[in-house]
Order: sequence, then C-alpha cells, then structure tokens
Amino acid sequence: MVRFATSLSKESIVDVEGVVSLPKETLKATTQQVEVQVRKIYCINRAIPTLPINLEDAARSEAEFEKAEQAGEKLVRVGQDTRLNYRAIDLRTPANQAIFRIQCQVENKFREFLLSKDFVGIHTPKLISGSSEGGAAVFKLLYNGQPACLAQSPQLYKQMAICGGYERVFEVGPVFRAENSNTHRHLCEFVGLDAEMEIKEHYFEVCDIIDGLFVSIFKHLTENCKKELETINRQYPFEPLQYLEKTLKLTYEEGIQMLKEAGTEIEPMGDLNTEAEKKLGRLVKEKYGTDFFILYRYPLAVRPFYTMPCYDNPAYTNSFDVFIRGEEIISGAQRIHTPELLAKRATECGIDVSTISAYIESFSYGAPPHGGFGVGLERVVMLFCALNNIRKTSMFPRDPQRLVP
Amino acid sequence: MVRFATSLSKESIVDVEGVVSLPKETLKATTQQVEVQVRKIYCINRAIPTLPINLEDAARSEAEFEKAEQAGEKLVRVGQDTRLNYRAIDLRTPANQAIFRIQCQVENKFREFLLSKDFVGIHTPKLISGSSEGGAAVFKLLYNGQPACLAQSPQLYKQMAICGGYERVFEVGPVFRAENSNTHRHLCEFVGLDAEMEIKEHYFEVCDIIDGLFVSIFKHLTENCKKELETINRQYPFEPLQYLEKTLKLTYEEGIQMLKEAGTEIEPMGDLNTEAEKKLGRLVKEKYGTDFFILYRYPLAVRPFYTMPCYDNPAYTNSFDVFIRGEEIISGAQRIHTPELLAKRATECGIDVSTISAYIESFSYGAPPHGGFGVGLERVVMLFCALNNIRKTSMFPRDPQRLVP
Repeated sequence: MVRFATSLSKESIVDVEGVVSLPKETLKATTQQVEVQVRKIYCINRAIPTLPINLEDAARSEAEFEKAEQAGEKLVRVGQDTRLNYRAIDLRTPANQAIFRIQCQVENKFREFLLSKDFVGIHTPKLISGSSEGGAAVFKLLYNGQPACLAQSPQLYKQMAICGGYERVFEVGPVFRAENSNTHRHLCEFVGLDAEMEIKEHYFEVCDIIDGLFVSIFKHLTENCKKELETINRQYPFEPLQYLEKTLKLTYEEGIQMLKEAGTEIEPMGDLNTEAEKKLGRLVKEKYGTDFFILYRYPLAVRPFYTMPCYDNPAYTNSFDVFIRGEEIISGAQRIHTPELLAKRATECGIDVSTISAYIESFSYGAPPHGGFGVGLERVVMLFCALNNIRKTSMFPRDPQRLVP
Repeated sequence: MVRFATSLSKESIVDVEGVVSLPKETLKATTQQVEVQVRKIYCINRAIPTLPINLEDAARSEAEFEKAEQAGEKLVRVGQDTRLNYRAIDLRTPANQAIFRIQCQVENKFREFLLSKDFVGIHTPKLISGSSEGGAAVFKLLYNGQPACLAQSPQLYKQMAICGGYERVFEVGPVFRAENSNTHRHLCEFVGLDAEMEIKEHYFEVCDIIDGLFVSIFKHLTENCKKELETINRQYPFEPLQYLEKTLKLTYEEGIQMLKEAGTEIEPMGDLNTEAEKKLGRLVKEKYGTDFFILYRYPLAVRPFYTMPCYDNPAYTNSFDVFIRGEEIISGAQRIHTPELLAKRATECGIDVSTISAYIESFSYGAPPHGGFGVGLERVVMLFCALNNIRKTSMFPRDPQRLVP
C-alpha cells in the first residue's frame, strides 16, 4: 500500500479508509489534534505526473524568496500570466482560497446591510440598445439583426426602477468596459455593486448609506474573517485598513486646497489624476488617521450628464467619490429627475438624445428626487487587502489581453 | 390650496406638510388607522397630464373585466407590449411591486440556504472565447479584435472553481441565449441561479441539496411573503403550490411508464416534449399530491456532453430535471471528471475539442467527482405564482423582439 501511495502523483484525488486516533508525536501536518491511520487507499482521479504549476511555488511570499536568495538558493517564481493560464491549480493556494471567500463575504454584507435598510435587490438587462452612457468604451454586438451593446453599468435601469416605485434598489452583476486600459486596477468585465434610492431632503442621505455600509463591511471582515485575512497576509503582507466610526467627508475644494498646500496644483474645475489621488490619500491619512473618506461637490465638467448640478452653484454637482488607500473606489451622486434638464445636459455633453429617449421619458411620468452609487467588488477586496493587482481578486479576469480561460 | 392640489396631474411627486390625526369616519384609502390633515403641499416633479398607461387600467384582474362586461361597461385593457414599453409606470401596479419583491426573496433564500451548507458565492466571466457549450444559440461579438461570445451558462467555470479547490460554489448572474424562441417561458437574457459541488458518494447528494433548498424557499415565501402573495393573487389568481416535506423522486423510466399507462407513448431514449411534461405533471399531482418533483436517470442521448453516464448502464446518465406545475425548471447532473472520457464525449457530441481544451485540461490536474444544477430565477417566480408569462417576472425582459427599454 505504501508503494502504491508513493506512486500517486501530487494533487491526485484519493479516498482513504482508516482509523482516527490521537497522535503519539508532533505531526508535520496542518492538523495537530488527530491523525488517521490509513488502512485502505483508493485513487479516484489521478493528476498528470508533472503539473504546469507547483503549488508550493505559487504559495510563497516575497519574504521567502528573499530569504532563499540570501541563502544562495534559487526558487521558482510563478508569474501572473502562468497563474491565470492554469487558474484551476492556482486557485488552490491558501491565499487564493482566502481571497474569494473574502469576496463572497463582502457581497453578503453588502446585500445584508442594504436589505436591512429596505433596499430591494433587482436585476437589469446587460444587453441594451444604443450606448448606455455615451463614450466609446462599449462592447457592440448584433441582437437578432439589431445593433446592441453590453451595459457599462446598470445606471439608467436602476433609475427606471426608482421611477417604477421601488424606493430603494440595489444590484450585483457584471458590468462591461471595452477600454484598452492595461493597468493594475482596470478590468474589461467586473462585478458591479450598485445602489439607487429616493432622496427625501439632501443627497448626503446617500453618503450616510455608504458610511454605514462600508463601516459594517470593514468590521465584518475584521471580526469574522480573521483566518482568511491572516492567510492572505502570510503570502501578501499588508497593513490593516484604518477607518473612522463616522466616515470623513471633505469637499473637492478642500481636497485640492490640501494638495496645493503640499505643492500640487490642480485645475479647480478639472479632475484629480491617479497620482494626485494617491497623494491626497496620504495627506488625509496623516491629518485625519483614515484610509477611507468621501470627497464631495465635484465640478460639473468632470461628471456624467445625468448628475444633478448644485442648487447654489451649477458649476458644481451634488456628487462624490470615495477613496480607499488613495484609490477611487466608489462614484455616486444625486441624479437629475426632470426630463427637461436631463435632455439639456445630455445635449451639452454631446449625447444624441434620441438614443436615450425611453430613459429621459421615464422622468415625465412622475419621478422622485433620487441618487445612488456604484462600486467594483474586485476593487473593494483588492484595496481592503492592499493587493497590488486587480487580477488577484477576479477569479477568471478579463483584460484587453486576456479572454481565457 | 385645494384648487392647486386638484390641478396636479396624476402620479406627480409632492411633498405634504400636515397634522397626523385619528380619522373621524371610514376612509376611502389603503390606510385606515390615521389620516393627515394637509396644511401645505409642494409639487416636486409634475407628471405629464396624460400618461401613456392609466395605473387603474393596468392593475385590474380578469374578474373585474368580466364583471364590467356583464354590466355593459367597457374597460381599457393594457396589453403586454404597452406595459413593457412604459415599464417605469407599469412597475407601479400593486402586483408588479409584489412580484419583484418576491423575486428578491427567492434570491435571498437561495443564497442563505447554500451559504448555510458551506457553499461559496463566486462570479465567473460572461465574456468568453469559443462557444460555451456547443450549439448555435450564442451571442457573438469581437473582444479586442478576437472572436468572443456571451456565456450561455456558468457551467464550465463553476466546474473549474470546483477543480480549483472550492468544494461547493454557487453563482447568481445573467445568462444569454440567442434562441429565436417566442414562447411564454423563454427569454434571451435571464438570471441564472447555479450551484456546483463535490460528490462524496452518490449524485443524489445534489438532489438532496435541491430538495432542502426549494422546500425552504417555498416555506419562506408562504410564511413571510403573505402580503405580496395576496397582492399578486388579487390581480392574477392562483392555487397555492403543493409540495411534499421530502421531495418526490421518480426515474425517467417510471415517468414514461406513467405516461404510457395514460395513453401517451414516449420514445424511451428520447426526451419529453412540453406537452408530455405538462401531462406528467398532472399525473404526478393526482397520484402523489405534489406540484414539485424530481425526474432522474435521463437517457444519454438527450443530455449535454459533460454529463456522467450511469455506471451500470451508459445509455443512461446520472442526471435529473426538476418540475414545478408540469414545467421543467431545474436541470442538473453529475459531471464527467476525467479528461479522457470528457474529450471522448465532446467528440461524440460533435464539439471541436480544441475550442474547450483549457476546460478539459482542468480535469487532469486532480479533479474530484462533482455535480450541480442550474435554474432560472424568473421561472421560479413565474411558476410559484402560476403566472402565464415569463415577461411578468423579468423587470426589463429581453426576447427575440424586444431590446428596449
């Protein structure tokens, strides 16, 4: 039997029959409490003798590589592409087992919190006519001979659900961006967490939902996913996320003032670039001790056409971005709820109003003031765990170069 | 103020300031306990004077139409297409408000039950290369110049997740079928509820999960969604679903024997058509008193290539369909977990093995025996409530004729 067992290739699936007993000596195994004295062993499915990835190689931390190098030892590194090509093996590393369990918990908590606040989970179509929000970054296809595209977000549909009398809605589903962005934080397909709600008095009601929602997600992960976070930490060490009980809110103007004082000039009616966002993240952390904050009241010029201008100054908007560790993660705003202003703003932004007429008309049948936000599930996990690449938090990632497996 | 209020068009959004008090007489309103004595009224967003759909018309039951007709009165009917064209209004009927709240509850219970059984929620790509499971019914597009298509199901990916060491997984997400099926039960895009799990000894372990899962969904709806079900019943009357505490399982052979005895001959190695399924549903209900049952051990010839043949007779498979009210709702099976048999079966079914090589290779790195199932969210709601058209349970349905709104 021992000869048979040693002949089995690594990662083969076996059934074992044996006697459970207390171990007599310390075991070289993950379980220390019991051992199984094997009587019979059956091979259910044999793995090929030489796997394209060695699991021990795929599971090593940077520190292990450095230590080996100092000892003059050469260890095999498994590159990102090789991992993704053989994802069915790569997913078996302890860190990957933990990452997607964490991802599931983020989604669970997202749903649970919003359901407790009377949101209704909905599903909106991913196949749509025209281009969802303008811009060129859409995947186009033919739908029964008709030109169609894949939804870049559930934006227009979650708003129509609000017009349809659902006071608060959320959706978890794929969103598609045909962008040629080869960065550590962009995917061509990712999981959108979206919410939309009636506003009773002020769009800060939306910010308050985000505050409560994300603080509850962070707490849940910290308290209930200790084992998974430790496992990720062992391969990819990271500092725990710092956040406040009540999330910090700064105006966009305050943000660019902080940057200015630190030597970075930003065009006041322009947008922040990635570098400026990173720097602002560091400045806010130094001053307020948080990795998580809301920046609100963005200039009109840098927001989508359906964003509500500020009542006191239409050069600004009732909008916000939310940052984790200096990276933008959530975008949200109050939306325009009157058809006249909506059509005007669409035209000003160069959108052909006829392609979105059903959407605009929805607001002439009685539409309440409303707002909402969207966030990428993969980014939440990546930034909570300070991972360096979004491909680590997508099970089968899609980027401009990758469509398989 | 009264003149202003009466001048407001129906469905306009208003803010009201007033005094809450106890009503002195019976009110003609849905709330009987309190009334608001209006002091001030503001119009927030005015609806156009003539709406394309009158909500009272859209909310009437068949019985109301018949009663009016007998009284010589002619009421306006709102057709399915008109409803869908103006979905933002149509969604406001009490029945539609209830239908999508029920849909949300089905999904919640689906997730909750599977999470309690140690399933992990995952997300797999909808943009894939090649054709997902063979067959012509795929939407094709170009992905950065490369031919791609939309996933017809998460089948291959949820299996790869099982190979990746996730012992039990589920997914809720859109699936796409480019079929030209103009029926009451087909959509070109619907929400798939999918699960996949390791099998320890027998594929009935998968059936047991379905049994526990659906009985818990039915119970939850019956006990916790009384108000919503009554509301739907008022417009679309239906008999409550009958089901057993332990779900009935019949073999395919038993099923066709029952049909034979009732005068319907079925080709023993063929499939049931819709009519035969309906009839079998009636026969099973008469004999066993249930609208919900599992039919298992289907012939090999009518199942997909990745289905595991029976060990005792490879003309049959370790597979099953599940029926509600005589309509097939769930399809499931044990899957082939060895690459050799999988490649052989794919070739026999006319599939070009090279297009699914990454999938087949996944099983040569150590793959456990496993099985799973898939079900359409819209169909569950439609059949639980005995609604006559799947377009009633999809918020923005997509069929061969409809891509808007």
